[in-house]
Amino acid sequence: MPTPGATTPDVAGTITELVTHDIRFPTSQFLDGSDAMNPDPDYSAAYVEIRTDAGDGLSGNGFVFTIGRGNDVQLAAIESLRPYLVGRSVAELLADPGQISAELIGDSQLRWLGPEKGVMHMAIGAVVNALWDLRAKRAGLPLWQLLSSLSPQELVALVDFRYLSDALTPDEALEILQRAAPGRQARAAQLMAEGYPAYTTTPGWLGYDDEKLVRLTSAALAEGFAMIKLKVGADLDDDRRRMRLAREVVGPDFPIATDANQRWDVDAAVQWMQALAEFDPYWIEEPTSPDDILGHAEIRRRLPGIKVVTGEHVQNRIMFKQLLQAGALDAVQIDATRVGGIDEILAILLLAAKFEVPVCPHAGGVGLCELVRHLAMFDFVAVSGSWEGRAIEFADHLHEHFADPARIARGRYVAPTAPGFSADLVPGVVAEFSYPNGGTWAPTLVGLNGARP
Amino acid sequence: MPTPGATTPDVAGTITELVTHDIRFPTSQFLDGSDAMNPDPDYSAAYVEIRTDAGDGLSGNGFVFTIGRGNDVQLAAIESLRPYLVGRSVAELLADPGQISAELIGDSQLRWLGPEKGVMHMAIGAVVNALWDLRAKRAGLPLWQLLSSLSPQELVALVDFRYLSDALTPDEALEILQRAAPGRQARAAQLMAEGYPAYTTTPGWLGYDDEKLVRLTSAALAEGFAMIKLKVGADLDDDRRRMRLAREVVGPDFPIATDANQRWDVDAAVQWMQALAEFDPYWIEEPTSPDDILGHAEIRRRLPGIKVVTGEHVQNRIMFKQLLQAGALDAVQIDATRVGGIDEILAILLLAAKFEVPVCPHAGGVGLCELVRHLAMFDFVAVSGSWEGRAIEFADHLHEHFADPARIARGRYVAPTAPGFSADLVPGVVAEFSYPNGGTWAPTLVGLNGARP
Repeated sequence: MPTPGATTPDVAGTITELVTHDIRFPTSQFLDGSDAMNPDPDYSAAYVEIRTDAGDGLSGNGFVFTIGRGNDVQLAAIESLRPYLVGRSVAELLADPGQISAELIGDSQLRWLGPEKGVMHMAIGAVVNALWDLRAKRAGLPLWQLLSSLSPQELVALVDFRYLSDALTPDEALEILQRAAPGRQARAAQLMAEGYPAYTTTPGWLGYDDEKLVRLTSAALAEGFAMIKLKVGADLDDDRRRMRLAREVVGPDFPIATDANQRWDVDAAVQWMQALAEFDPYWIEEPTSPDDILGHAEIRRRLPGIKVVTGEHVQNRIMFKQLLQAGALDAVQIDATRVGGIDEILAILLLAAKFEVPVCPHAGGVGLCELVRHLAMFDFVAVSGSWEGRAIEFADHLHEHFADPARIARGRYVAPTAPGFSADLVPGVVAEFSYPNGGTWAPTLVGLNGARP
Repeated sequence: MPTPGATTPDVAGTITELVTHDIRFPTSQFLDGSDAMNPDPDYSAAYVEIRTDAGDGLSGNGFVFTIGRGNDVQLAAIESLRPYLVGRSVAELLADPGQISAELIGDSQLRWLGPEKGVMHMAIGAVVNALWDLRAKRAGLPLWQLLSSLSPQELVALVDFRYLSDALTPDEALEILQRAAPGRQARAAQLMAEGYPAYTTTPGWLGYDDEKLVRLTSAALAEGFAMIKLKVGADLDDDRRRMRLAREVVGPDFPIATDANQRWDVDAAVQWMQALAEFDPYWIEEPTSPDDILGHAEIRRRLPGIKVVTGEHVQNRIMFKQLLQAGALDAVQIDATRVGGIDEILAILLLAAKFEVPVCPHAGGVGLCELVRHLAMFDFVAVSGSWEGRAIEFADHLHEHFADPARIARGRYVAPTAPGFSADLVPGVVAEFSYPNGGTWAPTLVGLNGARP
């Protein structure tokens, strides 16, 4: 465990440029990622590199994950933040990332576009995460270790408590972090030795046939994953058949999660899951709109024995606060690129710890596995102090495009050791997958530009 | 009252182009619109014209109101919808605007950017509203009359009930609309004769000094407005002094609303308003985050005698549903450009009617007075059937830029009679206020381009 001194930025310099890329992978060709609401995603990233004149060869990289169309809009939002950063002192920004996060989120004109939600909020998250990436690279530490090296007081200072104080005060946050402090070193060592629990969504995409489902479920069991997850919600007969097949493969005690990707209203969610109850689903994820706090609470009340979880589309800490206050959730599924960046994610981790609800990060897509492992590991080391009832999602695609890819060993996430937040792409990806002129896209799009999607 | 037949689009054609404009007014120079969270807004519009080859000279116009920076991001989102519309049959789109609304909101890739919130959702709202503008122009009717000419069944068919069915079913919506149907003609005639109740925010901006506050309050009283509204939340001593001054002018029984523009957490809202209670505030608007449903409910519970209202930043019908379910609101403040357009606004009007909570639209900004009067008048004629406890906000700026400006007579909104949704700008506005190259901006910006805002 490094000392706090090691985290101080040690190179000065000025931010010279935000370089952005519209990166899209043609995943719709293979139905990876197909579910009841997303039949044909092209997994994409609105990608940003923050460059400086420090001469150390380091850039701060971040991105927003999207699923295709609209990635250009997300990029425009990131580009609108350029004047807030270019020309600023790197040392000043990195010394207090909570300050620039609050400055961007609180900008009196930009906040009209949210506030604190959707395209503009995710853009801020990408930039804030890129600054954290740069700070971790400069410190020579993976982000989870950098965050775990900050004192409870330093961590509390990162959090914007606005709109949270009825559920979590700075004093309560400090108490949570201080409670976890003595065990930090032991848990970090345990992480390095054992890795963090993982579950896999790889077998469960709706576009896969039964043979592929059974084969991938068997493989997941053999690889040592803690759980598998099946997409549901398009056709009840299909769901019952697929749940039965998966249950036959894994046996009676192994958890099978289900995920409806927001498909249902309240009554439909309850009825559909009652029809799947005989197959003992561990949780139902995104049963309805991520905005429907009271709906989730009602579904949870009416489905005893089945956990209710959500988070990948929950727009900010204020919504998570209420989901917890309303008793709507059995797990908090943080996402690495949905909210306003690391500082807000810290607020959500603290809320979950306060309400004693486990954090099970959402991953998959483009680079989300690479990012969220840092967040779950930091939570384990320095916030909740536990991995009981917790696991990080894993989906096995697109990792080859990242310089520090997610690695799984014996069904668990290996703790990353490379400095930074693991957002760096390998050389060549930008040239190959830039939309619409990269090598992958240019031939496909001949004659299609301007056509209706 | 026209017959339904009059509303059928009678000119064919194809959509040829979405023309967009980044319109910004330099309102920050005069502190119009200054409040506790928005110290220096430049009222702006991300503006769209839908053009066709019908040869009738009509375009469908719509916009998103913003307050300056980020208007370009909003415009990029509108432009991303171009491929969904250009080349489509106008007759097909106008015959069933609910269909195109559902198609855009439900787009499996775009919805990742929300879902149903923020920049992408407002862009869809602008385009949907522009289509309704074109439909009303073709029908030769102001939008409120066009909507009021649709049958209850036609109106119900416009609504997307997804995520609403636990609070409002299609049958319940139909019953609400059928209950209002017999009185439509009489209420429309009453509107034409008397206008719709209004209240004014003009006296209450935080940037105005005491003399201007007193003078404008006296004027509002003399003009016959039903209520005035004061911005609060920056400094309690100032608020107490300003409330006392206003109360002295209007006397004991005239309602004075207050508006904190999301400034507080729950406890702070309760304490601040208790300190203003002696001046008998009629309502407190936006006491906290628009996302905080449970917070609004708690504030309302703890402030008996002061109404709690919100809406201008409430992102969609799902949030309004819960605000109503939670008993958090005494009035629903719909906004004309925050949600996904007329079809979603209809859903919100129906929810408000179901829960028997009055609708008091938010207005001001750029063109919001022009738009929302249609919505409140339609609500009066065909949905709630009442204007008891209701009033449309009025703020007296920027109306001169609209071809069919909001008009007030004896403190009430005059019913508009020009065909369309009143979004058309007068000739010359685009050239003068386009950012950054319009006549107003080009001189100001010399040397400032690329500077930090």
